[in-house]
Amino acid sequence: MDEALRLAGATGRMGNVPVGAVILVDDTIVARAANLRETLQDPTAHAEMLVLREAAAKMGSWRLEDATMVVTLEPCAMCTATIAQARIKRLVYGADEPKTGAVHHGPRLLNDHPIVVERGLKERESRALLEDFFKKLRGRE
Amino acid sequence: MDEALRLAGATGRMGNVPVGAVILVDDTIVARAANLRETLQDPTAHAEMLVLREAAAKMGSWRLEDATMVVTLEPCAMCTATIAQARIKRLVYGADEPKTGAVHHGPRLLNDHPIVVERGLKERESRALLEDFFKKLRGRE
Repeated sequence: MDEALRLAGATGRMGNVPVGAVILVDDTIVARAANLRETLQDPTAHAEMLVLREAAAKMGSWRLEDATMVVTLEPCAMCTATIAQARIKRLVYGADEPKTGAVHHGPRLLNDHPIVVERGLKERESRALLEDFFKKLRGRE
Repeated sequence: MDEALRLAGATGRMGNVPVGAVILVDDTIVARAANLRETLQDPTAHAEMLVLREAAAKMGSWRLEDATMVVTLEPCAMCTATIAQARIKRLVYGADEPKTGAVHHGPRLLNDHPIVVERGLKERESRALLEDFFKKLRGRE
Protein backbone atom coordinates (compact mmCIF):
# COMPACT_ATOMS: atom_id res chain seq x y z
CA MET A 1 0.00 0.00 0.00
CA ASP A 2 2.95 2.35 0.57
CA GLU A 3 3.93 1.94 -3.10
CA ALA A 4 0.31 2.53 -4.22
CA LEU A 5 0.17 5.70 -2.11
CA ARG A 6 3.47 6.90 -3.62
CA LEU A 7 2.07 6.37 -7.14
CA ALA A 8 -1.13 8.20 -6.17
CA GLY A 9 0.81 11.19 -4.84
CA ALA A 10 2.97 11.39 -7.96
CA THR A 11 0.03 11.35 -10.40
CA GLY A 12 -1.83 13.91 -8.29
CA ARG A 13 1.05 16.31 -8.87
CA MET A 14 0.50 15.73 -12.64
CA GLY A 15 -3.13 16.85 -12.39
CA ASN A 16 -4.79 13.43 -12.21
CA VAL A 17 -7.09 12.40 -9.35
CA PRO A 18 -4.57 10.75 -6.99
CA VAL A 19 -5.20 7.01 -7.05
CA GLY A 20 -2.48 4.36 -7.23
CA ALA A 21 -2.53 0.58 -7.55
CA VAL A 22 -0.15 -2.38 -7.52
CA ILE A 23 -0.65 -6.07 -8.32
CA LEU A 24 1.18 -8.73 -6.36
CA VAL A 25 1.75 -12.40 -7.06
CA ASP A 26 3.40 -14.43 -4.28
CA ASP A 27 4.00 -11.25 -2.25
CA THR A 28 6.02 -9.68 -5.09
CA ILE A 29 4.85 -6.59 -7.00
CA VAL A 30 4.44 -7.54 -10.67
CA ALA A 31 2.75 -4.34 -11.90
CA ARG A 32 2.20 -0.78 -10.70
CA ALA A 33 0.14 2.10 -12.09
CA ALA A 34 -1.44 5.41 -11.24
CA ASN A 35 -4.60 7.04 -12.56
CA LEU A 36 -3.68 8.77 -15.83
CA ARG A 37 -7.08 9.72 -17.20
CA GLU A 38 -6.31 13.42 -17.63
CA THR A 39 -2.75 12.85 -18.85
CA LEU A 40 -3.76 10.25 -21.45
CA GLN A 41 -7.29 11.59 -22.11
CA ASP A 42 -8.34 7.94 -22.05
CA PRO A 43 -11.66 7.13 -20.31
CA THR A 44 -10.32 3.70 -19.33
CA ALA A 45 -7.04 4.96 -17.78
CA HIS A 46 -7.90 4.52 -14.10
CA ALA A 47 -5.03 3.08 -12.00
CA GLU A 48 -6.79 -0.27 -11.59
CA MET A 49 -7.33 -0.69 -15.35
CA LEU A 50 -3.74 0.21 -16.21
CA VAL A 51 -2.29 -2.07 -13.54
CA LEU A 52 -4.49 -4.97 -14.72
CA ARG A 53 -3.31 -4.47 -18.29
CA GLU A 54 0.34 -4.32 -17.22
CA ALA A 55 0.03 -7.41 -15.02
CA ALA A 56 -1.75 -9.37 -17.79
CA ALA A 57 0.97 -8.38 -20.28
CA LYS A 58 3.67 -9.55 -17.84
CA MET A 59 1.89 -12.80 -16.97
CA GLY A 60 0.95 -13.49 -20.62
CA SER A 61 -2.70 -14.11 -19.69
CA TRP A 62 -5.82 -12.04 -19.10
CA ARG A 63 -6.72 -14.44 -16.24
CA LEU A 64 -4.94 -13.25 -13.09
CA GLU A 65 -6.22 -15.95 -10.76
CA ASP A 66 -3.30 -15.86 -8.30
CA ALA A 67 -3.05 -12.09 -8.04
CA THR A 68 -3.78 -9.55 -5.32
CA MET A 69 -4.61 -5.95 -6.19
CA VAL A 70 -3.81 -3.20 -3.68
CA VAL A 71 -5.40 0.16 -4.51
CA THR A 72 -5.67 3.37 -2.52
CA LEU A 73 -9.40 4.00 -3.18
CA GLU A 74 -12.53 1.86 -3.45
CA PRO A 75 -12.81 1.02 -7.19
CA CYS A 76 -15.61 2.44 -9.36
CA ALA A 77 -18.02 0.24 -11.36
CA MET A 78 -15.76 0.12 -14.43
CA CYS A 79 -12.73 -1.00 -12.39
CA THR A 80 -14.66 -3.32 -10.06
CA ALA A 81 -16.23 -5.15 -13.01
CA THR A 82 -12.82 -5.45 -14.68
CA ILE A 83 -11.24 -6.80 -11.48
CA ALA A 84 -13.96 -9.47 -11.44
CA GLN A 85 -13.44 -10.25 -15.14
CA ALA A 86 -9.68 -10.63 -14.66
CA ARG A 87 -10.36 -13.21 -11.92
CA ILE A 88 -8.28 -11.34 -9.30
CA LYS A 89 -8.12 -13.45 -6.12
CA ARG A 90 -7.86 -10.73 -3.48
CA LEU A 91 -8.59 -6.99 -3.45
CA VAL A 92 -7.25 -4.65 -0.76
CA TYR A 93 -8.26 -1.00 -0.82
CA GLY A 94 -7.67 2.07 1.31
CA ALA A 95 -10.39 4.71 1.48
CA ASP A 96 -14.09 4.14 0.88
CA GLU A 97 -15.72 6.02 -2.04
CA PRO A 98 -19.42 6.24 -1.07
CA LYS A 99 -20.37 8.22 -4.21
CA THR A 100 -18.86 6.23 -7.09
CA GLY A 101 -17.45 3.13 -5.36
CA ALA A 102 -18.93 -0.17 -6.54
CA VAL A 103 -17.51 -2.70 -4.06
CA HIS A 104 -19.16 -1.76 -0.77
CA HIS A 105 -21.33 0.96 -2.31
CA GLY A 106 -23.59 1.41 -5.36
CA PRO A 107 -24.06 -1.76 -7.43
CA ARG A 108 -21.69 -3.80 -5.16
CA LEU A 109 -20.42 -5.67 -8.20
CA LEU A 110 -18.30 -8.20 -6.28
CA ASN A 111 -21.17 -9.56 -4.20
CA ASP A 112 -21.57 -12.63 -6.41
CA HIS A 113 -17.83 -13.17 -6.89
CA PRO A 114 -15.46 -15.31 -4.83
CA ILE A 115 -12.97 -12.44 -4.41
CA VAL A 116 -11.56 -11.78 -0.93
CA VAL A 117 -11.95 -8.06 -0.17
CA GLU A 118 -10.19 -6.08 2.56
CA ARG A 119 -10.81 -2.37 3.05
CA GLY A 120 -9.43 0.41 5.21
CA LEU A 121 -5.67 -0.26 4.82
CA LYS A 122 -4.00 3.18 5.25
CA GLU A 123 -7.41 4.72 4.68
CA ARG A 124 -6.40 7.99 6.33
CA GLU A 125 -3.37 8.52 4.09
CA SER A 126 -5.35 7.74 0.94
CA ARG A 127 -8.18 10.07 1.89
CA ALA A 128 -5.73 12.86 2.78
CA LEU A 129 -4.20 12.69 -0.73
CA LEU A 130 -7.64 13.07 -2.33
CA GLU A 131 -8.83 15.83 -0.01
CA ASP A 132 -5.64 17.75 -0.60
CA PHE A 133 -5.94 17.35 -4.39
CA PHE A 134 -9.52 18.62 -4.55
CA LYS A 135 -8.80 21.45 -2.10
CA LYS A 136 -5.98 22.67 -4.38
CA LEU A 137 -8.19 22.23 -7.48
CA ARG A 138 -10.96 24.34 -5.97
CA GLY A 139 -8.39 26.94 -4.92
CA ARG A 140 -7.33 27.34 -8.56
CA GLU A 141 -10.83 27.84 -9.98
CA MET B 1 -24.28 -1.98 -37.31
CA ASP B 2 -23.17 -3.66 -40.54
CA GLU B 3 -19.60 -2.50 -39.88
CA ALA B 4 -19.78 -3.71 -36.25
CA LEU B 5 -21.03 -7.11 -37.46
CA ARG B 6 -18.20 -7.30 -40.00
CA LEU B 7 -15.64 -6.58 -37.22
CA ALA B 8 -17.29 -9.20 -35.00
CA GLY B 9 -17.10 -11.84 -37.72
CA ALA B 10 -13.45 -11.09 -38.43
CA THR B 11 -12.33 -11.34 -34.79
CA GLY B 12 -14.34 -14.54 -34.35
CA ARG B 13 -12.23 -16.12 -37.07
CA MET B 14 -9.17 -15.13 -34.98
CA GLY B 15 -10.48 -17.07 -31.94
CA ASN B 16 -12.02 -14.16 -30.02
CA VAL B 17 -15.66 -14.10 -28.95
CA PRO B 18 -17.24 -12.31 -31.94
CA VAL B 19 -18.26 -8.84 -30.80
CA GLY B 20 -17.68 -5.64 -32.79
CA ALA B 21 -18.28 -1.96 -32.07
CA VAL B 22 -18.08 1.41 -33.77
CA ILE B 23 -18.38 4.97 -32.45
CA LEU B 24 -20.07 7.66 -34.51
CA VAL B 25 -20.04 11.43 -34.19
CA ASP B 26 -22.40 13.34 -36.50
CA ASP B 27 -23.29 10.11 -38.33
CA THR B 28 -19.64 9.47 -39.24
CA ILE B 29 -17.66 6.51 -37.88
CA VAL B 30 -14.69 7.88 -35.86
CA ALA B 31 -13.50 4.59 -34.33
CA ARG B 32 -14.00 0.87 -34.85
CA ALA B 33 -12.85 -2.15 -32.85
CA ALA B 34 -13.44 -5.82 -32.25
CA ASN B 35 -13.06 -7.90 -29.11
CA LEU B 36 -9.38 -8.90 -28.89
CA ARG B 37 -9.19 -10.37 -25.39
CA GLU B 38 -7.68 -13.69 -26.46
CA THR B 39 -5.41 -12.17 -29.10
CA LEU B 40 -4.02 -9.51 -26.75
CA GLN B 41 -4.43 -11.48 -23.49
CA ASP B 42 -5.68 -8.21 -22.02
CA PRO B 43 -8.66 -8.44 -19.63
CA THR B 44 -9.82 -4.97 -20.73
CA ALA B 45 -9.72 -5.68 -24.48
CA HIS B 46 -13.45 -6.00 -25.16
CA ALA B 47 -14.61 -4.29 -28.37
CA GLU B 48 -16.38 -1.51 -26.46
CA MET B 49 -13.28 -0.67 -24.39
CA LEU B 50 -10.98 -0.60 -27.41
CA VAL B 51 -13.37 1.53 -29.47
CA LEU B 52 -13.76 3.99 -26.57
CA ARG B 53 -9.98 4.31 -26.27
CA GLU B 54 -9.58 4.83 -30.01
CA ALA B 55 -12.37 7.41 -30.16
CA ALA B 56 -10.96 9.31 -27.15
CA ALA B 57 -7.50 9.33 -28.73
CA LYS B 58 -8.95 10.71 -31.99
CA MET B 59 -11.13 13.32 -30.25
CA GLY B 60 -8.34 14.29 -27.82
CA SER B 61 -10.66 13.93 -24.82
CA TRP B 62 -11.90 11.17 -22.56
CA ARG B 63 -15.33 12.84 -22.54
CA LEU B 64 -17.25 11.64 -25.60
CA GLU B 65 -20.44 13.59 -25.00
CA ASP B 66 -21.56 13.80 -28.65
CA ALA B 67 -20.85 10.20 -29.51
CA THR B 68 -23.01 7.18 -30.32
CA MET B 69 -21.73 3.65 -29.78
CA VAL B 70 -23.09 0.82 -31.92
CA VAL B 71 -22.15 -2.65 -30.64
CA THR B 72 -23.32 -6.10 -31.68
CA LEU B 73 -23.97 -7.44 -28.14
CA GLU B 74 -25.36 -6.04 -24.88
CA PRO B 75 -22.28 -4.74 -23.00
CA CYS B 76 -21.02 -6.42 -19.80
CA ALA B 77 -20.61 -4.54 -16.48
CA MET B 78 -17.03 -3.45 -17.27
CA CYS B 79 -18.00 -2.00 -20.65
CA THR B 80 -21.33 -0.56 -19.52
CA ALA B 81 -19.68 1.29 -16.64
CA THR B 82 -16.97 2.58 -18.99
CA ILE B 83 -19.58 3.76 -21.52
CA ALA B 84 -21.23 5.73 -18.69
CA GLN B 85 -17.87 7.14 -17.55
CA ALA B 86 -16.99 8.27 -21.06
CA ARG B 87 -20.31 10.21 -21.19
CA ILE B 88 -21.47 8.48 -24.39
CA LYS B 89 -24.76 10.08 -25.52
CA ARG B 90 -26.41 7.14 -27.22
CA LEU B 91 -25.90 3.37 -27.14
CA VAL B 92 -27.31 1.02 -29.78
CA TYR B 93 -26.81 -2.71 -29.39
CA GLY B 94 -27.82 -5.85 -31.23
CA ALA B 95 -28.38 -9.04 -29.24
CA ASP B 96 -29.34 -9.22 -25.57
CA GLU B 97 -26.88 -10.96 -23.20
CA PRO B 98 -29.07 -12.15 -20.29
CA LYS B 99 -26.14 -13.81 -18.43
CA THR B 100 -23.44 -11.12 -18.34
CA GLY B 101 -25.17 -8.07 -19.86
CA ALA B 102 -25.40 -5.05 -17.56
CA VAL B 103 -27.67 -2.66 -19.47
CA HIS B 104 -31.05 -4.43 -19.47
CA HIS B 105 -29.85 -7.30 -17.27
CA GLY B 106 -27.83 -7.79 -14.07
CA PRO B 107 -26.86 -4.54 -12.33
CA ARG B 108 -28.47 -2.38 -15.10
CA LEU B 109 -25.67 0.16 -14.73
CA LEU B 110 -27.18 2.78 -17.05
CA ASN B 111 -30.43 3.15 -15.09
CA ASP B 112 -29.23 6.35 -13.39
CA HIS B 113 -27.55 7.76 -16.50
CA PRO B 114 -29.04 10.04 -19.15
CA ILE B 115 -27.87 7.78 -21.99
CA VAL B 116 -30.33 6.94 -24.76
CA VAL B 117 -30.33 3.16 -25.27
CA GLU B 118 -31.70 1.24 -28.26
CA ARG B 119 -31.53 -2.53 -28.45
CA GLY B 120 -32.36 -5.23 -30.96
CA LEU B 121 -30.77 -3.70 -34.09
CA LYS B 122 -29.77 -6.70 -36.27
CA GLU B 123 -30.17 -8.87 -33.19
CA ARG B 124 -30.58 -12.04 -35.27
CA GLU B 125 -27.31 -11.53 -37.18
CA SER B 126 -25.36 -10.74 -33.99
CA ARG B 127 -26.74 -13.76 -32.16
CA ALA B 128 -26.02 -16.04 -35.16
CA LEU B 129 -22.33 -15.02 -35.08
CA LEU B 130 -22.07 -15.90 -31.39
CA GLU B 131 -23.98 -19.19 -31.65
CA ASP B 132 -21.85 -20.23 -34.60
CA PHE B 133 -18.62 -19.35 -32.71
CA PHE B 134 -19.51 -21.35 -29.61
CA LYS B 135 -20.81 -24.28 -31.66
CA LYS B 136 -17.46 -24.51 -33.46
CA LEU B 137 -15.56 -24.10 -30.15
CA ARG B 138 -17.47 -26.97 -28.57
CA GLY B 139 -16.89 -29.05 -31.68
CA ARG B 140 -13.13 -28.66 -31.23
CA GLU B 141 -13.04 -29.68 -27.58
